[in-house]
Amino acid sequence: MADYRVSFKPQDREVEVAEGTLISEAAAKAGIDLNMPCGGQGRCGRCAVIVEQGEVQRRSVARLSNEALEEGYALACQTVVKDDLVVTIPPQEKIERRLPTAQRVARVELPFAYDPEKDQAIRKYFLEIEPPTLIDKTDDLARVVRTLNTQHETGIARLAVDVALLRKMAGVLRGAQWRTTVVVETDTWVSPDGPPRLVDIVPGDTVASSWGVAVDIGTTSNVVYLVDLLTGRVVDTASDYNRQISRGEDVISRIIYAGKGDGLAELQGLVVGTINGLLKKLAADNGLSTDDIYKMTVAGNSTMIHLFLGMPPESIRMEPYITTSDRPLPVMASQVGVEICPLATVDCLPGVGSYVGADITAGVYSSGMCDYGGLTLFIDIGTNGEMVLGDCDWLISCACSAGPAFEGAGVRDGMRATAGAIEEVWIDDNTYEATYRVIGDERPRGICGSGLISLLAELFISGVMDKAGNIDVGLDTPRVRQGDHGPEYVVVKAEETATGRDIVINKVDIDNLLRAKAAVYAGFSVLARSVGIDLSTVEHILIAGAFGQYLDVENAIQIGLLPDVPRERIKFLGNTSIMGAYLALVSRESRAKIAELAHRMTYLELSADNTFHDEWVSALFFPHTHITDFPSVMELLKGKRH
Amino acid sequence: MADYRVSFKPQDREVEVAEGTLISEAAAKAGIDLNMPCGGQGRCGRCAVIVEQGEVQRRSVARLSNEALEEGYALACQTVVKDDLVVTIPPQEKIERRLPTAQRVARVELPFAYDPEKDQAIRKYFLEIEPPTLIDKTDDLARVVRTLNTQHETGIARLAVDVALLRKMAGVLRGAQWRTTVVVETDTWVSPDGPPRLVDIVPGDTVASSWGVAVDIGTTSNVVYLVDLLTGRVVDTASDYNRQISRGEDVISRIIYAGKGDGLAELQGLVVGTINGLLKKLAADNGLSTDDIYKMTVAGNSTMIHLFLGMPPESIRMEPYITTSDRPLPVMASQVGVEICPLATVDCLPGVGSYVGADITAGVYSSGMCDYGGLTLFIDIGTNGEMVLGDCDWLISCACSAGPAFEGAGVRDGMRATAGAIEEVWIDDNTYEATYRVIGDERPRGICGSGLISLLAELFISGVMDKAGNIDVGLDTPRVRQGDHGPEYVVVKAEETATGRDIVINKVDIDNLLRAKAAVYAGFSVLARSVGIDLSTVEHILIAGAFGQYLDVENAIQIGLLPDVPRERIKFLGNTSIMGAYLALVSRESRAKIAELAHRMTYLELSADNTFHDEWVSALFFPHTHITDFPSVMELLKGKRH
Repeated sequence: MADYRVSFKPQDREVEVAEGTLISEAAAKAGIDLNMPCGGQGRCGRCAVIVEQGEVQRRSVARLSNEALEEGYALACQTVVKDDLVVTIPPQEKIERRLPTAQRVARVELPFAYDPEKDQAIRKYFLEIEPPTLIDKTDDLARVVRTLNTQHETGIARLAVDVALLRKMAGVLRGAQWRTTVVVETDTWVSPDGPPRLVDIVPGDTVASSWGVAVDIGTTSNVVYLVDLLTGRVVDTASDYNRQISRGEDVISRIIYAGKGDGLAELQGLVVGTINGLLKKLAADNGLSTDDIYKMTVAGNSTMIHLFLGMPPESIRMEPYITTSDRPLPVMASQVGVEICPLATVDCLPGVGSYVGADITAGVYSSGMCDYGGLTLFIDIGTNGEMVLGDCDWLISCACSAGPAFEGAGVRDGMRATAGAIEEVWIDDNTYEATYRVIGDERPRGICGSGLISLLAELFISGVMDKAGNIDVGLDTPRVRQGDHGPEYVVVKAEETATGRDIVINKVDIDNLLRAKAAVYAGFSVLARSVGIDLSTVEHILIAGAFGQYLDVENAIQIGLLPDVPRERIKFLGNTSIMGAYLALVSRESRAKIAELAHRMTYLELSADNTFHDEWVSALFFPHTHITDFPSVMELLKGKRH
Repeated sequence: MADYRVSFKPQDREVEVAEGTLISEAAAKAGIDLNMPCGGQGRCGRCAVIVEQGEVQRRSVARLSNEALEEGYALACQTVVKDDLVVTIPPQEKIERRLPTAQRVARVELPFAYDPEKDQAIRKYFLEIEPPTLIDKTDDLARVVRTLNTQHETGIARLAVDVALLRKMAGVLRGAQWRTTVVVETDTWVSPDGPPRLVDIVPGDTVASSWGVAVDIGTTSNVVYLVDLLTGRVVDTASDYNRQISRGEDVISRIIYAGKGDGLAELQGLVVGTINGLLKKLAADNGLSTDDIYKMTVAGNSTMIHLFLGMPPESIRMEPYITTSDRPLPVMASQVGVEICPLATVDCLPGVGSYVGADITAGVYSSGMCDYGGLTLFIDIGTNGEMVLGDCDWLISCACSAGPAFEGAGVRDGMRATAGAIEEVWIDDNTYEATYRVIGDERPRGICGSGLISLLAELFISGVMDKAGNIDVGLDTPRVRQGDHGPEYVVVKAEETATGRDIVINKVDIDNLLRAKAAVYAGFSVLARSVGIDLSTVEHILIAGAFGQYLDVENAIQIGLLPDVPRERIKFLGNTSIMGAYLALVSRESRAKIAELAHRMTYLELSADNTFHDEWVSALFFPHTHITDFPSVMELLKGKRH
């Protein structure tokens, strides 16, 4: 097969590739990072490029207009190189950053009094070792162990030591004139009765500081807490978008991407790169070396944990949705490429199964619901809605695929919750005019998830839309009109937007959102029904995750996304996943309890539940077929034209 | 600093190097393997090259005659590049191969009836795994563990699994339609109570074969036994010179080499390369893949084990001679680069201390002396003489530095025991004429260790040399003459040799050999005296190692290298180090006993013993100052002119 040269502009980079190569692969080879949120499936259209010269074969032209095709546009992920090419890459949409911790430094309080002697598995000891003599010829390692007992009464009879540490031990001991600090991890990975593990040996006395990090690997954003292991305190936090986003926005796209060529290694490298970037920033900002970090705990959904550890996630996506392991043993930092002390333990928290991962276990634990006598419902809504129902005696969990509608995808003017997104809407009952609030000091560009929920609620309560989601085209307002996809409501007129075109919501958008909210509510219903409980008896509803932080409870109940319970029962917890990782880092007891928790949580597979479909169909109305389950909404609608 | 071009002939290779580079470094960069038995210390003269053009700086010209210097000769390891150079490399002395196992395939018998259920830590299980369903969503790893119990009643509750194995597990299970063989190691490295370790998972049913290897890493030669773990039998053996030899012939040269630049990594790579070569040969000859080998046990002296594991051996060389660890934990094959199943355990046997290493522990164990009620002396003579005295209740060990004289170094016409070496000599009592036997069908080129011992004994018994090692210049024979280094004896005349020059032994040679044999004998004496025992009461003298195989007992006693005991007490055991590694591979009990043995063997440091020097001085005579300790030699000398 022939080789062709592909030149990219404006980067002015040229690569040689074999015939049959995709333009996206050629771009990757040229070191150019194309945005492919759909994972290279040709669905999103974001990787469109202009072929200026040369012949190509377009496998798919989805989302490209005839006009665009005439101009030479092609989807990089779907277009095959057949000639020497000149390709122009249009400016890529930049992700504007509005991350949870960028707004405020987390103030995290521990729910217990920290005692490093009892709570912390990482211990540092300064040793002034008696040098060997011809009479006292004990080897270096045995000498270290001996001194740990004579100078610190640790009672340690043996140490598990990786050969990588043995390779540096002689040099460190002699270079430091036998005055060294050893870092020991008292919990062993495998056997509770096993010997402690030697994590590091460094010159001089460094016991005055000891560092660890807790990490939450979200599909969208990654968060790192830098923790002082002597006080148990969170000293600093940092977060960034998961660099995997450019290879797919949701877990399904990522899984597909991982299955192609070196996709898995690439995604593994991207998330580790994100974390390493955060670690370097935290180390620099706090005057320490990343090598001074001796432990990492990690929470995240099962797919994120698989990608982080380099395990292929393929079978999580395909029925019957199976992980390689929900409880992978800890690894050493060097095994995954995380840039902390190379032999430090990287401990991924256990999950329950496929779509109820370590993020949920961590969240349930940190919420305290697993120790509480009253009935609690824990919810984490994103692309998937995960939910856990139970108390201190039993816990049952499930996950429903809500689809990406609440994250702004599959909705014409949907967007992520970044600057320019409408996050709240109000519609006048009489004029049907809309007012709105935008994130940042900008003209609106679209509507984010919380804005969509607010909009749906207002459309419904104001009577613009009926309970089936049909827009009333008989209303006397220019905001309601016929569009290409049936009736639509104009939220913002073109002259007020950043894009110069109307921001609208149409029937297709509404149906997508309706299906998503119905899936979540059906999840609650099946979960409650499976244990013979009525949702109205739930004492607490705990909402986890970034999405929850911006959700208006009234709106959510009005559209039937949340059950209609007294409002004081509903609490927003924020990022409970990182909180669980943090607790696991600073409390051996917590870590053990999270493991127990993962074992005792039941997983209800909705795909295998024959009542789920019925519940879902019943929930395909605003707020629900059974309106009596929503008394406060009934009250609100009284006297209105519904 | 300027860069210079160095061209090498006859290889016709050219490299660019910085000013100040050694010619030996430039040669290495050009991929040319110079012979540096002394480790690049400028001592041996074997790396001499001819500088044809260009300016150099000779740091040392040791061993080069003025004539040679005029011809442009320079020691590559001591000569600095100062100019563009043309360098000619004379033909390198080739090592001619006469390895123990090249002569005969070992016939190794196990001293017990092998029962893989009881004796073998490596177990293979074929699993026909029930695939997951929406109802049975157990993750892959837990499913494997569950099936191990339902189909094999292993009672295994958990498995320790490296992340590298988790990375391939999902693919193997599904690719093999859930019919797989798992390889489990029941002994855990760290904790006896820990869970078994998953070593591999492979498609289909492969339980009909199971392979392991035992390895002896000698300073000179490496030996591998291929072992069928189902029968416990040695199926094939292979051996080769340790490729490290080109970087130094003895452990001290290797330690020095390891301390320079990337020397340690280079030596590690060389020994692993040697072993991998042998593994590939054994696999090819026996129709298996090296990936089918699931365990390796390794014996060798402390320096060899350090170099193999990549631990710097520097402190073994310098007083007080300390190892990093005498009992390093097992590593995974991939951690050292050994090409067997990547996660297979590589288990280095424990040593006692610095110069009494795993080779000796392995030897003592395989000899059975540690279980025997009678008093036994175990000896391994090479550059160092290691010896162990004791019985089933106690064992005391020591090591004495005999120097390389018995390996043919430091002796004018000494050479290694390869083709062309004189291995035995007889001298006529009346004519003083010598006859000899040569290894291989060749003209003699020099004298190897066993030949030197034979020669010394004959010189002494025939009266050519007195008990102090002085050659009698008054004898009426042309064989005795004055040489450059005092009186010398001509063993072979120039016309009979391969080199065309006389093969002789002179006073300097004799003194070197006398010091070496005195060191060994003083070792025995101090060892015996330290426990209040007379050497004549020792029931067995066991001689281990290749050197012992060619040693004539009578000669060794006549010169006072071995004590004068009834001959039937002396046994030659051959390579006991590989035998110990083999037993550790096929017997969990043996492995545990070797660990106990290493713990209970006492190490007597001769450098710290104030009687050693006196014993050594007493032994600086043939056979000894106390001739009454050698009654058989006294008897032999009766009536002779001594």
